[in-house]
Amino acid sequence: MGISPFEYYQANRQQFLDGLISLLKIPSISTLPEHRPDIRRAVEFLAGELRGMGMKNVEIIESEKEGRHPLLYAEWLEAPGKPTLLLYGHYDVQPPDPVEEWHSPPFEPAIRDENIYARGAVDDKGQTYLLVKAVEGFFKTAGKLPINIKFLIEGEEEVGGEHIEEYVPAHADKLKADAAVICDTEMFAPDLPTLTTGLRGLVYTEVEARGAAHDLHSGMYGGAAPNPFQALAEMVTQLKGPDGKIRIPGFYKRVKRPSAAELAAWKRLPFKEGHFMKKEMGATALIGEKGYSVLERLWARPTLEVHGIRGGFTGEGAKTVIPAVATAKVSMRLVPDMDPKEVIKQFTAYVKKITPKGIKSTVRLLSSAPASVVSTESRWIAAAAEAMEQVFKKKTVYMRSGGSIPIVGVFQRSLKIPSVMMGFGLPDDNLHAPNEKFHLPNFYRGIEAVGRYFELLGK
Amino acid sequence: MGISPFEYYQANRQQFLDGLISLLKIPSISTLPEHRPDIRRAVEFLAGELRGMGMKNVEIIESEKEGRHPLLYAEWLEAPGKPTLLLYGHYDVQPPDPVEEWHSPPFEPAIRDENIYARGAVDDKGQTYLLVKAVEGFFKTAGKLPINIKFLIEGEEEVGGEHIEEYVPAHADKLKADAAVICDTEMFAPDLPTLTTGLRGLVYTEVEARGAAHDLHSGMYGGAAPNPFQALAEMVTQLKGPDGKIRIPGFYKRVKRPSAAELAAWKRLPFKEGHFMKKEMGATALIGEKGYSVLERLWARPTLEVHGIRGGFTGEGAKTVIPAVATAKVSMRLVPDMDPKEVIKQFTAYVKKITPKGIKSTVRLLSSAPASVVSTESRWIAAAAEAMEQVFKKKTVYMRSGGSIPIVGVFQRSLKIPSVMMGFGLPDDNLHAPNEKFHLPNFYRGIEAVGRYFELLGK
Repeated sequence: MGISPFEYYQANRQQFLDGLISLLKIPSISTLPEHRPDIRRAVEFLAGELRGMGMKNVEIIESEKEGRHPLLYAEWLEAPGKPTLLLYGHYDVQPPDPVEEWHSPPFEPAIRDENIYARGAVDDKGQTYLLVKAVEGFFKTAGKLPINIKFLIEGEEEVGGEHIEEYVPAHADKLKADAAVICDTEMFAPDLPTLTTGLRGLVYTEVEARGAAHDLHSGMYGGAAPNPFQALAEMVTQLKGPDGKIRIPGFYKRVKRPSAAELAAWKRLPFKEGHFMKKEMGATALIGEKGYSVLERLWARPTLEVHGIRGGFTGEGAKTVIPAVATAKVSMRLVPDMDPKEVIKQFTAYVKKITPKGIKSTVRLLSSAPASVVSTESRWIAAAAEAMEQVFKKKTVYMRSGGSIPIVGVFQRSLKIPSVMMGFGLPDDNLHAPNEKFHLPNFYRGIEAVGRYFELLGK
Repeated sequence: MGISPFEYYQANRQQFLDGLISLLKIPSISTLPEHRPDIRRAVEFLAGELRGMGMKNVEIIESEKEGRHPLLYAEWLEAPGKPTLLLYGHYDVQPPDPVEEWHSPPFEPAIRDENIYARGAVDDKGQTYLLVKAVEGFFKTAGKLPINIKFLIEGEEEVGGEHIEEYVPAHADKLKADAAVICDTEMFAPDLPTLTTGLRGLVYTEVEARGAAHDLHSGMYGGAAPNPFQALAEMVTQLKGPDGKIRIPGFYKRVKRPSAAELAAWKRLPFKEGHFMKKEMGATALIGEKGYSVLERLWARPTLEVHGIRGGFTGEGAKTVIPAVATAKVSMRLVPDMDPKEVIKQFTAYVKKITPKGIKSTVRLLSSAPASVVSTESRWIAAAAEAMEQVFKKKTVYMRSGGSIPIVGVFQRSLKIPSVMMGFGLPDDNLHAPNEKFHLPNFYRGIEAVGRYFELLGK
């Protein structure tokens, strides 16, 4: 062979791009049943590549449940004494709607200005495929990998990931690894190598407020009848004040502030508040707790949000109903070290306490997940940072995300392993929107960075 | 002839009942286009009776607008020097749904325990028809009426009354009268002759709260993004406190408390708070302003109610959206002497003032109507009270209604006449519900009371 994996990466860009284009042409939209054959084609495509390059036990894992999509597993475990990484990605995509806003068809990849435009380009086919290509480089040059590798690729990330969430805990021995690599996030800014080291958790509830036994006419009863909307408004303002502080007793008790070093590093990130507010959000003001930077509020402070209020009359015109019931969807984002179970208890007790006279309230839990954070001191993170720096020639930055990536929690809970979130997307890549793209230099740098990571861990 | 109208009423009960049954058999549901032929049959039925008995210029008035239903007009103006009454009723009915809950078919009138069960029995065919029969008694005995009479009967009361609201102001000369008689209300309790002397007004608005330019993900933006639901909750609690007091500056300025005599009379009404709360509303508490009785709160105090809040996500499951826009339907009930225009101004200014940072609010007016009240000292009311007392052998009580009857406002504004609301329904007559009924003794007593009223006014 004679060449290194990195020379191989350099020499095979056109082949990598051709492969990516083939994968992107498959409309593997997980939410639409008519695309089941495409889901199948996408998973077969990746299975074929993994098998072809030398991965072992390549397995398309069917779900026993109707309407679910297969997982793809593959392993290579012939590096005794070396670490084992579990590589995660997903081959399914969001629907392309609204199709008319695309400048080129969503499933006919088009290259403009070093970007490849297609549904799934960055989320997550491009980023899944770069893991595959990084592994390929070692097989094609050294004939072996510097570490042990397991792939677990899902086809339901865009529809809730039910299959993988059931599969992982049931197969913890098979999936045993030292760390997971999740290639499904973004860089803080172009050319800035980024590791995502924390995610907020979530407690999502419905709060139902019930007044009279049946809907009442506001003419006949207004002034004596308890109004569930008024009650919910009072309760919402008592849950979170206009200062952004959540008033649930004990809520902040376990909140752990990021280290001074982490906060200082966030301050150095190229974040422009005005741009974020005006261009990204289209808002006229940012709200939230005083004394915390925007990034700290988004990444490391818990929040409480109302997502919708059901009940009464919301159609055209004027119906004067005082409804018997109104229901608010209320969620809380959690940060380390908040305990979802404890938060649910605190929330439920407080909601009961602040329920106004004449109203019966009920809290229903819809979902919950703890926050997760990986120490930047961890060897898995440190090596990933080092690998990215080698490729991008810049110091790797650490960010967190205010959202949740459920699989991180699944790996944490079921496999007891941290997730290294190496992502190569850009903030303007239009995830879930028309004209999704992937910046091709990041595709190639991503392959190389992952290769460097394997190499560093194998030393 | 030889007999009096009152002897005629006594002798013709079976004939009146047969006529009522025929009218109730016609399913004149104004909201369902497939019932247009029935609407036509109902108006022709009444026109035929009015023409037959001797009313003049009987006219079925078509609307120029598509999908509207005709008015029925008739007059007899041959009592010079005597007052003129404008008699109002409506011949359209609500749909009978849910049909399966009826004990006898809604358009096959059935008599059980002195009640006639049918859709429209009390609302308002029975009460419209008793006006017709009261007039008939004079024609059939004296050959003339003691006063001048105009009928104006509509076929759209259950769908908003658009036709009559346009017709009245455009034909004020034709409809000129001293007072209107509206036979579409109820008695406070069985056997208790009742006049409704006041109605609350209404200002109905939509309050839109707009945050960012587009929907945002609560994971990515929660903690910095203005949330329109949070804003609306804060605004609603500032509009009305938990004490039921409305906080809009100047809102109560023109509120005129009922006279001490009226308040004292309300206290004597057979009103049982516990029954009202538990049986009628199915509630566990009554809310509202301290220091005012329930009836005063319902009839003579303004209120503010939220009827629905649109926006965000209210479906099944957990979607973590912070919507760009949320809109609350908010109405206020007005009492004398509040001015709707002034209230709208106060409301709009105050909403603007309490709109939180980062939110743009807009108030849209959907409809408005002033409160109306007729003095119990008015000769039209006094004579009606006297007429009812003669028939029911009990002192007539005065109540108000917390709702609005838009036609009262139309007559007030366009014709400058008060409305005498003589109603013979009972609180348990199931208006707009399955098993609507009319208590037959009240049908006959209603005919007689209206006849006595004509006679008293003609003296």
